[in-house]
This record gives sequence, structure tokens and C-alpha cells, in this order.
Amino acid sequence: MTQSAGALLTDLYQLTMLQGYLQQRMEETAVFEFFVRQLPPHRGFLVAAGLEQSLSYLEELRFTPWELDWIAQSGRFSAALVEYLTQFRFTGDVHAMPEGTFFFPDEPIVRVTAPLPQAQLVETRLINLLHFQTLIASKAVRVVLAAPGKELVDFGLRRAHGGEAGLLAARASYLVGFAGTATVQAGALFGMPVYGTVAHSFIQAHVDELEAFEHFALAQPNHVVLLLDTYDTEAAARKVVALAPRLQKRGVTIKGVRLDSGNLADHARRVRRILNDGGLADVRIVASGNLDEYAVQELMAVNAPIDSFAIGTRMATSADAPYLDCVYKLQEYAERACRKRSEGKATWPGCKQVYRHYGADGRMAYDVLTLDGETDLKSEGTDFKSVPDGLIQPVMREGGRLASPPALTDVRARVADELARLPEHLRRLQESPPYQVRVAQALRDLAKACDERR
Amino acid sequence: MTQSAGALLTDLYQLTMLQGYLQQRMEETAVFEFFVRQLPPHRGFLVAAGLEQSLSYLEELRFTPWELDWIAQSGRFSAALVEYLTQFRFTGDVHAMPEGTFFFPDEPIVRVTAPLPQAQLVETRLINLLHFQTLIASKAVRVVLAAPGKELVDFGLRRAHGGEAGLLAARASYLVGFAGTATVQAGALFGMPVYGTVAHSFIQAHVDELEAFEHFALAQPNHVVLLLDTYDTEAAARKVVALAPRLQKRGVTIKGVRLDSGNLADHARRVRRILNDGGLADVRIVASGNLDEYAVQELMAVNAPIDSFAIGTRMATSADAPYLDCVYKLQEYAERACRKRSEGKATWPGCKQVYRHYGADGRMAYDVLTLDGETDLKSEGTDFKSVPDGLIQPVMREGGRLASPPALTDVRARVADELARLPEHLRRLQESPPYQVRVAQALRDLAKACDERR
Repeated sequence: MTQSAGALLTDLYQLTMLQGYLQQRMEETAVFEFFVRQLPPHRGFLVAAGLEQSLSYLEELRFTPWELDWIAQSGRFSAALVEYLTQFRFTGDVHAMPEGTFFFPDEPIVRVTAPLPQAQLVETRLINLLHFQTLIASKAVRVVLAAPGKELVDFGLRRAHGGEAGLLAARASYLVGFAGTATVQAGALFGMPVYGTVAHSFIQAHVDELEAFEHFALAQPNHVVLLLDTYDTEAAARKVVALAPRLQKRGVTIKGVRLDSGNLADHARRVRRILNDGGLADVRIVASGNLDEYAVQELMAVNAPIDSFAIGTRMATSADAPYLDCVYKLQEYAERACRKRSEGKATWPGCKQVYRHYGADGRMAYDVLTLDGETDLKSEGTDFKSVPDGLIQPVMREGGRLASPPALTDVRARVADELARLPEHLRRLQESPPYQVRVAQALRDLAKACDERR
Repeated sequence: MTQSAGALLTDLYQLTMLQGYLQQRMEETAVFEFFVRQLPPHRGFLVAAGLEQSLSYLEELRFTPWELDWIAQSGRFSAALVEYLTQFRFTGDVHAMPEGTFFFPDEPIVRVTAPLPQAQLVETRLINLLHFQTLIASKAVRVVLAAPGKELVDFGLRRAHGGEAGLLAARASYLVGFAGTATVQAGALFGMPVYGTVAHSFIQAHVDELEAFEHFALAQPNHVVLLLDTYDTEAAARKVVALAPRLQKRGVTIKGVRLDSGNLADHARRVRRILNDGGLADVRIVASGNLDEYAVQELMAVNAPIDSFAIGTRMATSADAPYLDCVYKLQEYAERACRKRSEGKATWPGCKQVYRHYGADGRMAYDVLTLDGETDLKSEGTDFKSVPDGLIQPVMREGGRLASPPALTDVRARVADELARLPEHLRRLQESPPYQVRVAQALRDLAKACDERR
């Protein structure tokens, strides 16, 4: 599966439509926007993520000879299309909310402005990249909200949906405040911290559990986290206490222990007591096993003495809401605003901008969704004193990035800032009153004009 | 994201444990098995898939200089480990259920027998590959059950969890009976049929809907499927009727129309009538938009005149059950059977085999889970007349495949055969009484012996 990226990672209809656009010489400028139509259950806000991979995709998109051959030999396409694809480069502009920005339904997070065939061709993979990281960042940030001050680590690769999902889930969760990931390749590719403990198999491969602990400690003397629940959690904790002085003599300090089954709060309390009584008050307790924001919230509520949570499957699959109702829609072609009116799926036309108003307490108060370039915010009955920067900013011009990719630490700082400004009711994990996104009159007027034109 | 595969696509602890195994010279033969502990909600059976990608991974697993450098420079690992990884080749044996086999909790679908460090290292990616395709095959087969005789097409790439998930979801759904996919690269890589229609953007980029239909038809004259719901579905159907004779004169036949919003059954009935009255009885109706087995079942129950269902997000994410409780567990090391006893997560020890008994009607009656090589099936009170072939068969020896990958059409034939032998109560989409998996006495005895040994 080394070919999971590539120019053919798209829907067949993109190529078919391209053939039609080229035949009809429809190569004028089109504007597409990516947005989420509705919040999934249990979510009060979303976190924009995936822009960096999207920009890399646009910069690097080429058709290889193998791909061109497949297209030519499929019998569906003209020589003119193959020739067009042979030369293909993305030469358009992109505007976007920076990664880590919190956003709401109907607010575009990415806008692509390019000749129609180019902007069309990239639809499938752009959605694929933006959807997944936004989905996971929006899930992972809930764990961050549930566990203030705790260390959170991504353990999700094994049950993520494929390899790319595992990697991008590691990145997305790191962006919103996780400390790191167990996935080695995410560490190598993204320069993010990697964490690891030990598996039950290591313990089981030894005849004696204590010997397994000792062998593991010697294998990784600076990162010793021992797994307690293979047979009997509390008995294992007592073995740790017995082992610690022996290891100490050899210069090895046990950093932590991991609990992976049973009632985690009860085990953590008993293990904490055993460790403290044994002089190991500095040994941290890591919990894992089917954790998500709800489980973490419960453990926090009962003050379980857990220092670090390893969050796997349910975060990496966004298990309670495994997809977003997101789309990439044509908003304008050849300077004519477009609007889809399909039942239950109607969209706001035109190039849009989002302005965010903050209250006196510094918290987010409401957003205004309006047309890009429209600066009359007062007539909407809003409290803007002046026109602030829009959330959507230029990031690519004529196919080239306007700036180097931001450091992930900068994105983390933005998320921390957004969290500090999040209204109290959106910090809760339960359903809460929706945040207000006011649709400006300018946008309503354009929608009306589009409808009347037909 | 071209590096979403690779030897570092693993958990950090695998490398740490390897360092420990090598330090202690623990390189004797280990046996690991992959199985699902519990069925997810709404599932009565699972479909084994992902074996082919797993075997390719084992055959091709190498550490590149870039990967070895990262490991060496991480500061966590010894020169001995780096040297071991430089030479790394998987030289073990694999036994497995063929792809497409239906299976149940606690039944291993893959067994790896190899020197302990090798069998350990491959854990993360093997789970990642086996989990996802099994998850999707087990979801997609429910759509197949819900829609006998209908054409089903995968439209899931855009909201699948990353690129690899999109590709593998296309493959997994094809294995269980889907006709094909919209994902071009899945067609190119797996040789499976690709399908496409047209997007709303193509219609919207034209000022006139009828003109858009005509342009699209001319762009792909042998595969004309028109999208009706951009503005007004029934009005669009009448435009199709008006357009058809004009296209016919140019040798172009409209093959189908697609409905993507609103009440699909109502629209399908009205559109069917408009098409039939217009002499287009042969034009097929394709439905899409948030479909899954439940929605398809409802449309089938009201006899909606739909010929083809395009199934996207909810299938490609297995939305109602986005993960399986699957594991890859050490069963034996150095000829000593192993058993994990963690609360709620205890496992059956040893190398296992599964025998399936069929009733007089040819349907699956029950399975027996026993030790490999144990052929006393009668003492369990079973009805076996003789010992049949076990479901778990050798597929790789000393790191090499024992046979070429089967054609996907052969796997499809196996699934069709399994479906024909599926008990009636498991064909329903609702919860049903569990299929019986009898645990043989030999296995219970071994588990008891393992527990007593400790």
C-alpha cells in the first residue's frame, strides 16, 4: 500500500467533468469553498485542521506516466484530456482559516480560486484531507477540555482507519494539546514527541512477571513505564515496589506504571497507595483502554490519581461521530455567484468571509458570515467598533505557498488561545446552545438574487 | 503524505520491546493470533479481509536508511538494535482464514509464527490492516444483504479517514459484492470496476441546466448518468426527456439519472414516471446521499424504483460501529502456551483452529474452536461425521507466500458462497441470537493449566 497518495486518488467523475470543461472551453476562474453544513451530535464547535497537507497536495499534484497510462487505457477519455493532465499543475489561489482556528457550520475554512478544471479536479482529495484532521482535532480537543493539567498521549494507530489515518490522527491530536503519540512515524515525519510503554506480550513471553519488569527496565532505562494488569494489577504494583531499589542501584528509575483494564479509578487508587507506601510517590500512573473524553471526565470527577491518559481507538476514529457533514462547493464561476438549492442542502453563494466578535470578557461572542470585501458590519446590529481581520486569509498564490508551514508548536499556541476564549457553554462535553453565526444581509441578498435569476 | 506506509508505521513500544528481547536473547518461536473479542453493536457476523495487504507488508518490510537514521538519532536505542533492524526480514509462517470467510468472536483469522522479535514488531501494522478491511467488509456485506439484485457502488473516498482508508474501503466493499467504486486509484491498483456520474458543480458552472446535461453527455457519451437535484428534481427529469432524442440523433444514449437529496423514494417514483412517459424506460435511476444498509432497506421495503445505490460515508467509516474490538495476542512462546487474564480481557491460549459444521440444509450450524492439531470433535457432543478442513490454513512459510494472491473475483465468489450458507437469523440487519462457537474441552484444559501454572 505504498500508493495510497497520488493523482488518481480522486473520484472518476472529476476526470469526466474535466473532459467536459475542456471540450466546452470552460476554463474561467471558479471559486470553491470547503465548509461543514451541520455539527455532528455532541459537538459545539470544530477545530480547523488539515490545511498543511492540503497545500502540499496542491503544490505537488502531478500525474505520473503510470497514472496517465491508466487513464489513456481506460478507454473513457480523450487524448486531449491526457495531454492536459500531462501538463497539469495547480496554479490557483487559496484562502483559509489557519489550522487550529475554531469554527462553526456554514463558515468556509478553505477557499480555492482557480481555473475551473483545476479547482474541480482537487475536490475529492482536499475534502479527504481537510475532513479527517478537522474531525480528529475536534474530537481530541474534547479530551483536552475534559482533562485539564493531565498528560494526553495518542495510542490510536492500530485501529485507525489505515496508515494515513493513524499518522494524521497523531498530528491532529498534537495540534490541539496532546503531549505526543505512540506512532513512531508521526514523530519522524512531524517532529512531534513519541511515547511508549510495554505490551502484555512482553510480560507473557517471560515465565516470571518480575523478571519481565526488570528486563524491560534494562532495555529502556531512561523511559521505564511498566504494565501492571497482565495477571493481577495490585500484585504487580507490589513487584514494582520490590524491584525499584534494585534498579536504583543500577541507576535506573521507574518513571511510571500503566493500567489497561478493570475499574481504572479503583486500581489507580490502590496502586497509588502501594507505590506511595513503597516510597515511589514520584512514579506516575498512566491509564489506557477504551478511553475517550467521557471516560476521562468520569475519572477526573472521582479524582482518580491518574497522571497521564493514553487515548486510542475512540479518538482516532472519532467513534461517537465518525464523520462530518462537510462539502466543497462551487460558489462562483466566471464572476457569477452560484447556489445549490437541493432540498436540505442549499448553500450560501459567493466568496465569503468570517468576522468574529469578542465580548468584554475576551470570550468569543458571535461570528458574522458575510461576503468577502463587504465591510458593513454595523448594519447587522453588531457591536463591531471597526472591521477586524477576517478569519479567512490568503495562504497560496498562483500555486505557491505565501509562507512556510507554521511550526506545530505555533498551531498549538493558537489552539490554547482559542480555548482560553471559548465561551463557557461550549467547554462542556454535553449538547449546549449553539454559538451564534449571523448571516449578513449582503449574503442574503446575493442568495435571493441567485434564486431569482433562475 | 507519501510516507504513510513504511517500517516506522508502528508503536514506539514495539521497538523498545525488541531492544529488550534482543538484550535477553529471547528469539525463540512465538505464536501470535489476531482475533475479535466481541462483536460490535448491530453485527451478527464478520467478514475476514485485509490478509493480502498484510502478507505484502510482511514480505516487503524493510528499514530504509532514513528510518534507521531516525531510530539511531532518537537516542533511545542501542547500536545492536539498529544493526538488527538493518538486516530485518520477516522469515516467519502465517496461517489464516482466506479473505471473505465469515467469522465470529474469539476465532483467530490470522496466526503468525516467527522468532519473537519479528512476530512482535509487526503487531501494529497487521492490526491496522486487518482491522480496517474486516470492519468495512463486515459493514458493506450488510448493504449487500439489504439490496438483493441491486447494483451497489462505493462513493466513500472523500470522507473516508485518509487516502488509504478510501482505497481499502473500495476494495473491501468490492470483495463482498459491491459492483465497483468511484475511486480511480482503487480501479487502477486493484483492477476493480470504476463508476462515475457528475457533480452539482458541473451543473452550476453552466447558466442553463439543460445545456449542462448536454455538455456532460457529450463529454462521456458511453457513460451518461445525469444529476437531477441541483435545483428541481422533476423539472430536471423533464429536461432529460427533452434532451434524449437530440442526443440519440448524435448516437448518445442516456444510461441513467442520479438523485442525491430529498425523499429518495418519492423522487424516484415521480422521476420513473416522467422517464417512462417520455419513452426512457431503459434509463436507470441511481440514488445517493447518506445511504447505508438501513436507508437502503427502507427504500427496498417501499419498492422505490431505484436500480443502483451509491454508498459513501456511512459505509467507508462503518459509521454505526467505527471500530472492532480486535487484538493480536501472544498465544505461545518457546512452546509454552500463554494467556492474558486481565479483567474482561482474558484470552484463550495456544495455537487454535476453527471447524465449521453445516446443517442438513447446507447452512452454517455452529463452529468449534479448538487447539490446532486436536481432532477429537465428537467428544464435544458435535455432529461432525469426520474431521473437515479447518478454516485456518497455511498461507506463508519462512516469509514467502505459498500461493499468488487470489483474484478478487475468487474472493467475491467465496463471499457469495458464504452468504448462501448464512443462517436466516444472521441475514437480518437487527440484533439476532448469537451464532454458536463451542470452545472445545482441549482448549479449556489448556487455559486451566496456564492459570494453575502461575
